[in-house]
Amino acid sequence: MLAEGGYDTLSIEQVADRAGVHKTTVYRRWPTKLDLVVDATRERSREHVPVPDTGTFAGDLRALARSVAANLRSPRVRTMTSNLVAAAATSPELSARTHEFWAERLEMTRRVVDRAVARGEIAATSNHELIIEALVGPLYLRLLLTGEAIDDDTADRIAELVAAGAAGTGTGPVSERR
Amino acid sequence: MLAEGGYDTLSIEQVADRAGVHKTTVYRRWPTKLDLVVDATRERSREHVPVPDTGTFAGDLRALARSVAANLRSPRVRTMTSNLVAAAATSPELSARTHEFWAERLEMTRRVVDRAVARGEIAATSNHELIIEALVGPLYLRLLLTGEAIDDDTADRIAELVAAGAAGTGTGPVSERR
Repeated sequence: MLAEGGYDTLSIEQVADRAGVHKTTVYRRWPTKLDLVVDATRERSREHVPVPDTGTFAGDLRALARSVAANLRSPRVRTMTSNLVAAAATSPELSARTHEFWAERLEMTRRVVDRAVARGEIAATSNHELIIEALVGPLYLRLLLTGEAIDDDTADRIAELVAAGAAGTGTGPVSERR
Repeated sequence: MLAEGGYDTLSIEQVADRAGVHKTTVYRRWPTKLDLVVDATRERSREHVPVPDTGTFAGDLRALARSVAANLRSPRVRTMTSNLVAAAATSPELSARTHEFWAERLEMTRRVVDRAVARGEIAATSNHELIIEALVGPLYLRLLLTGEAIDDDTADRIAELVAAGAAGTGTGPVSERR
């Protein structure tokens, strides 16, 4: 429904109608539309963009980039994301919740980087927190601004670039591998 | 005015009023509001985010990331960008023009990569077209979704990550330098 009509026109009453339940059933778990939308987004992300654990850093980055790309190719997700960004532009509250959602997602996803450090694949550097942003940033840039294709090939090449960058800016074990 | 009230409420009449000219003066150069907005955005980008030429690939990436970051820290640009993304979500025409604008900007900016290849700093790889996107993507991600700080330190670290990635995924001259 978020993809169909946008955030502003969405109402808990309509969601309850569609789900075939009384609106109080929805309100009991999600007191506001904002809570419902944030929770739905979180749920969808967990399901469609799981934190990968392939055993290698390069493999994890590729898996993550591919699942984000696949998610952003879904017409529903495209519209939903654009609608949320649009609504957040005029709602400080939605904007704050979006930031929270992203902080949580990035925190979860950074496990990929922590594991790579633990395995000695990359060194612990100050660029850590940026690795996931560098991976997904270009995909969202394509969705929201450039309109270029978000295909698996693009996902793979971004993953390759970021993996090499993470290795290249590190010190310690990584430099021995080169 | 785009930052103040958004795209939807902007009108050429108001722009003419503010500029103290007759509206026909504006219409003569910009037949539609869309033309005016796209041209204003283009002009602002050329001025505030010039294509750097520092003599080194790392220097160019850092200069570019810093100027994009400085631009995105401006409250006007932040609001303008959010407003444009929001308006593009419901206007296929604005969306198409935004894509054109970005294609043009990326094309211009890729000179930085071409020069680095010409100087033998990085090898010609299929990741070329992604280098600039990897550099600016995370900054726009922070603006539009995560809300995290877009400071010079972040810009420098992204530039460093992408420079290392571009060198690391290349073959040829670059591997000798490592």
